[in-house]
Amino acid sequence: MTPADLIARKRDGGTYTREELWALVQSVVDGAMPDYQIAAWLMAVYLKGLTPEETLELTLAMAEIGTTRHPHARRPRLDKHSTGGVGDKTTLVVVPLLAACGVPILKMSGRALGYSGGTLDKLEAIPGFRVQLHLDEAWDQVDRVGAAIIGQSSDLAPADKKLYALRDVTATVDSLPLIASSIMSKKLAVGAQSLLLDVKVGRGSFLKSHERARELARLMVGIGKGAGMRTVAAITGMDEPLGLCVGNAVEIAEACDVLADRGTADARFRELCLELTAHGLLLAGHAGGIAEARGKALDVLSTGAGAQKFEQIIDAQGGDPRVVEDTGLLPRAPARASCVAPKRGVVTAIDGEAVGRLAVALGAGRMRKEDAVDPSVGVIFHRKVGEAVSNGEALAEVLASSEDRAEWAAQELLAAIQIADGCPAPAPIIQELIE
Amino acid sequence: MTPADLIARKRDGGTYTREELWALVQSVVDGAMPDYQIAAWLMAVYLKGLTPEETLELTLAMAEIGTTRHPHARRPRLDKHSTGGVGDKTTLVVVPLLAACGVPILKMSGRALGYSGGTLDKLEAIPGFRVQLHLDEAWDQVDRVGAAIIGQSSDLAPADKKLYALRDVTATVDSLPLIASSIMSKKLAVGAQSLLLDVKVGRGSFLKSHERARELARLMVGIGKGAGMRTVAAITGMDEPLGLCVGNAVEIAEACDVLADRGTADARFRELCLELTAHGLLLAGHAGGIAEARGKALDVLSTGAGAQKFEQIIDAQGGDPRVVEDTGLLPRAPARASCVAPKRGVVTAIDGEAVGRLAVALGAGRMRKEDAVDPSVGVIFHRKVGEAVSNGEALAEVLASSEDRAEWAAQELLAAIQIADGCPAPAPIIQELIE
Repeated sequence: MTPADLIARKRDGGTYTREELWALVQSVVDGAMPDYQIAAWLMAVYLKGLTPEETLELTLAMAEIGTTRHPHARRPRLDKHSTGGVGDKTTLVVVPLLAACGVPILKMSGRALGYSGGTLDKLEAIPGFRVQLHLDEAWDQVDRVGAAIIGQSSDLAPADKKLYALRDVTATVDSLPLIASSIMSKKLAVGAQSLLLDVKVGRGSFLKSHERARELARLMVGIGKGAGMRTVAAITGMDEPLGLCVGNAVEIAEACDVLADRGTADARFRELCLELTAHGLLLAGHAGGIAEARGKALDVLSTGAGAQKFEQIIDAQGGDPRVVEDTGLLPRAPARASCVAPKRGVVTAIDGEAVGRLAVALGAGRMRKEDAVDPSVGVIFHRKVGEAVSNGEALAEVLASSEDRAEWAAQELLAAIQIADGCPAPAPIIQELIE
Repeated sequence: MTPADLIARKRDGGTYTREELWALVQSVVDGAMPDYQIAAWLMAVYLKGLTPEETLELTLAMAEIGTTRHPHARRPRLDKHSTGGVGDKTTLVVVPLLAACGVPILKMSGRALGYSGGTLDKLEAIPGFRVQLHLDEAWDQVDRVGAAIIGQSSDLAPADKKLYALRDVTATVDSLPLIASSIMSKKLAVGAQSLLLDVKVGRGSFLKSHERARELARLMVGIGKGAGMRTVAAITGMDEPLGLCVGNAVEIAEACDVLADRGTADARFRELCLELTAHGLLLAGHAGGIAEARGKALDVLSTGAGAQKFEQIIDAQGGDPRVVEDTGLLPRAPARASCVAPKRGVVTAIDGEAVGRLAVALGAGRMRKEDAVDPSVGVIFHRKVGEAVSNGEALAEVLASSEDRAEWAAQELLAAIQIADGCPAPAPIIQELIE
């Protein structure tokens, strides 16, 4: 069976055996299958799909083949993954809360790409913070502090690295089996006992419809279970940006505000953090039921144990822990401008994708992989969907590298915000739980 | 519009504008579109198709972009192309007949690949014959002798070269728009005023059904007309091998036997050669109607003018022209074995593809592009479909490089030949004419 024969099978709508999928992934990893054959195969998969069984086997092969397990690697109790969205700083709150509850977490995160931000870029807005830790160093930190948030190890799931880079340039990114196998192969390569998935849906996510989000969530939960990993997926709302801030330093500041429970937090974002922490506790076996788990999560938030845990994590990774109490220590943009409501009414929609693209244009994200991000720029919302505004009131603040950029962005931002006479109450932040 | 955007358009079943197709072909030729993007695009085209309008524009762009017209190049009056089949030596008879009728022909031919033979490999079985002539040398020969049969010039339609090589390894060969654009871009790059297409259909061709052959023929005739080239396609039968011989030297010998009108020729093959010559004469404006054209074709065959023309072509290209009169001068295989009828009856079928693959296994064709061919090996049929055989009679002779190979191949060949009590009369060799 040559690579061309395998491509022809999927082209004609056929299915692969376990052995064929493992051989295919092996060829991708060892270079026997050149990029142009992988690209043709990806397009055939995009257009003809993979069965759930094929997707599971593909993922298992991607997780296993070429993955070098570090001698100091251990099997974490719990892992978390978000499909990403605009303003998604959930990890920065949930990991400290879980660690404060006694669930050790070694969290591998990613960088900004497209209109979504990246947890690593946000953390690097904290002066001194190091995300590139050796795995043994990271595990030592988990033992001492309870958690570490680091960059993806380069020797996990190398097939995904190759496939992802090719998908990006061959118009084959948006395929659910390929998305599911990409995410889950990395998670299986890390090898946690259980996994909490946050599947974002709406205008600020790449998954625009609930049906598609549910399909991806089911696919990933199926893979997790098929691989023997307890997996729960929460489908969570991502129409408007999550929380009040979009950017790097501003999102760190917002996470600190939530953890320190200062009372300034966006209620929906705070609820999401508490709910995901509670489900994480359940998955990790740290609570007998959801009510008990919710109680524990709220407890570590209101006592400040979560904030303290975040300080310990920052301190352990070389950052300045005082930012949690004093967010003024974070980088500040030289210019700012207000986005002013042109009429009175109620905010009925904020286009998450448009805000994300604006943040990238300001320098908070990347146009190309090699671009540097500006930690100081971004957007701070004063009003979110469902809130009343009066004419001339500031809807949001734009932080930029110059006055001109700030004025321009404030004007652009206005187009992403709808104001009308009223709107129905927003859906609950967790729309559905797939387990 | 990036290459990835163009791929995504076809992936989603959209169509391209003229400008987009020319830009795409330009990117293929100048290397701006890397192989992996071309490969993904080819798979999208394979699965989503191209409209006839898109196929025409793609072909025009492929013919034009990167084609360097030689300073000595001229616009030939007539060109011919066969989609290829097992035992297809038609060019070797039709080109001399047309030249003998006064139609100058500069014919560019190809090499064996897959289970079909190649005209160039066959001609090289003639001692001394050179197929790699400079284009000015070839045109000089056409002026002196009336015809030349040479290898494809490397500076015609470079996009096709790139696309063809990629299709071969990405399971995207068998797409009618891609096949049509590949064939027709080369023909348009040569730039003849009219074109005679021989579209083979049946078990010895890559087109197995008449419907598919008709679809390809219509597509190619449409492209030819769209580009202002008079184009006629004959759909001709290719279930059993064409004529009596499959191989290189043996097919040259058979072509000589037909041209010399020795009375030993396979009647259907001889009829095909005469019919295609007649249609070529019509296309070139050398006859007022098909009856006059048929008369002229038969005339140059029966007077020996065609055989003499072939001698002149061979002589002009450095070969030994005496092979036309004495085919014993051609390379002879060291071993031969008979394939013997296991029972009496009528030959009801000979599997062309199986015979072609057997010829390749004997060394007459290529497994890989870089393989050398053995000019001396092949198969000579004594009985074809519709002919009666008695038990123990020789159905065919196998010519091989050793006795063992010959015995093995004779046994294998038997499996490709069906003998039964009787069979319906075979369809006419020209099944349909598309113009």
